[in-house]
Amino acid sequence: MAESAGVYCPLPSEQDNVEQAKGDPALDSSTFIPPAPLMSPSIIIEFCDRCRWLHRATWVSTELFLTFPPPVLKAISIIPLNSEETGGSFRVWLNLEGSPPQLMWDRKIEGGFPELKGLKQRIRDYVQPGKSLGHSDKKSE
Amino acid sequence: MAESAGVYCPLPSEQDNVEQAKGDPALDSSTFIPPAPLMSPSIIIEFCDRCRWLHRATWVSTELFLTFPPPVLKAISIIPLNSEETGGSFRVWLNLEGSPPQLMWDRKIEGGFPELKGLKQRIRDYVQPGKSLGHSDKKSE
Amino acid sequence: MAESAGVYCPLPSEQDNVEQAKGDPALDSSTFIPPAPLMSPSIIIEFCDRCRWLHRATWVSTELFLTFPPPVLKAISIIPLNSEETGGSFRVWLNLEGSPPQLMWDRKIEGGFPELKGLKQRIRDYVQPGKSLGHSDKKSE
Amino acid sequence: MAESAGVYCPLPSEQDNVEQAKGDPALDSSTFIPPAPLMSPSIIIEFCDRCRWLHRATWVSTELFLTFPPPVLKAISIIPLNSEETGGSFRVWLNLEGSPPQLMWDRKIEGGFPELKGLKQRIRDYVQPGKSLGHSDKKSE
Repeated sequence: MAESAGVYCPLPSEQDNVEQAKGDPALDSSTFIPPAPLMSPSIIIEFCDRCRWLHRATWVSTELFLTFPPPVLKAISIIPLNSEETGGSFRVWLNLEGSPPQLMWDRKIEGGFPELKGLKQRIRDYVQPGKSLGHSDKKSE
Repeated sequence: MAESAGVYCPLPSEQDNVEQAKGDPALDSSTFIPPAPLMSPSIIIEFCDRCRWLHRATWVSTELFLTFPPPVLKAISIIPLNSEETGGSFRVWLNLEGSPPQLMWDRKIEGGFPELKGLKQRIRDYVQPGKSLGHSDKKSE
Repeated sequence: MAESAGVYCPLPSEQDNVEQAKGDPALDSSTFIPPAPLMSPSIIIEFCDRCRWLHRATWVSTELFLTFPPPVLKAISIIPLNSEETGGSFRVWLNLEGSPPQLMWDRKIEGGFPELKGLKQRIRDYVQPGKSLGHSDKKSE
Repeated sequence: MAESAGVYCPLPSEQDNVEQAKGDPALDSSTFIPPAPLMSPSIIIEFCDRCRWLHRATWVSTELFLTFPPPVLKAISIIPLNSEETGGSFRVWLNLEGSPPQLMWDRKIEGGFPELKGLKQRIRDYVQPGKSLGHSDKKSE
């Protein structure tokens, strides 16, 4: 499936007419628009790096993108924390235009890590209310 | 190694003195400070989602965090793109305070995906000049 | 998409008729059949763990499963090596019934890591000859 | 950290004395020994691919390798299942020399997915009894 979809996005060097590629804005980085500060909707995952939760955070990010592909979620940011005060932290925030990021999960408040099911339901209720999450909507994961 | 470090970041419910945990600001989400829009230094990875490069982007993110752990890199954002114009795009940006994000890699300009070695060297030159990247500094990956 | 497919595979505790679940062979581990030694076709990825290539190996594994979902590939095994003699090793093997595993990639012979495109083409020629790999079949990645 | 360790495992082409590299057994694939069928100790993760649990399985694999680096665990195999009878399956097996693979986790028996903590403790009791798992040995994850 991956990289084998029908869609084909060639490199300029693969284009039939090489002349066309010359002066191609695709190759002029001065025309590139850098990404906006905080896209909406987007997810931010903060975690205690001392606790070595990078791979857990990355996995959660992968799952959220597969359930809410763009443009439902436009970006996910991963923020490792390594100070004393952030020890043991694992937080998931949802950023929606017009308000500060809203907390979707906090390990200390919830007493543990997010089950994907519950986390997806909370996010769904904001970004795609009414969407069925299939498995994830059932009682037990 | 992971999750087995000496550092121990308990949940409030695991603290000896449960009374202490009551009224704990760690549990009062109204005191939580949401993450700032664009941290510095941070990395932004944009890619064509039609090309199904999510896992490639996520892998690059994992490698960059392992080479430049916080606070060298404070955040990595992953941005899937799915419009016609962004077809085939794979870009890595470095965000440093005081200037717009700087382009570290563009698949079309470079004619392919980043070798980790080269990408890490470019980022290193900004965020940790002089740091040896070990393997990655050698000629071939 | 993930975990939100129409297919629904309930836990026994979620089944309507709880009585049915009692004595359910699904819950009697003495009836479980452990996986066979080397499934066919399957992939084996060996790598030098001193070089910290676990995440690269894992990413390659993810991509191969997405391109060759079961039953095309029935298993992928990841083998980290940490002796002197295996320093710098990154090998991908294909296991097909009736012969010893065949080498698909060796970092030292090839002079670097597999581009996914080339690796997928080689594996495809054995397990699914004639299948188009879309992007991956084009000249440049 | 990754790919920046002191250890350096060069490609033959990077070796000072190119003559030495000629006839190098490292480059003669007929001398390569393919991996043995089932290494010991090793882990096997079987899961229902219809339920789209590949990324969960891969994440568990990453975490187990970080906690039990080689030679504690010598291999991890991932086996996606896609038949009717294996719907909803998520099983973790431990393979130890001299006996058939032993079941460490079954989603249906346990009523859900493994918390890493519990899974690591069970595996630890076989492969490295007495080893402290740090965080993972505490009561709540």
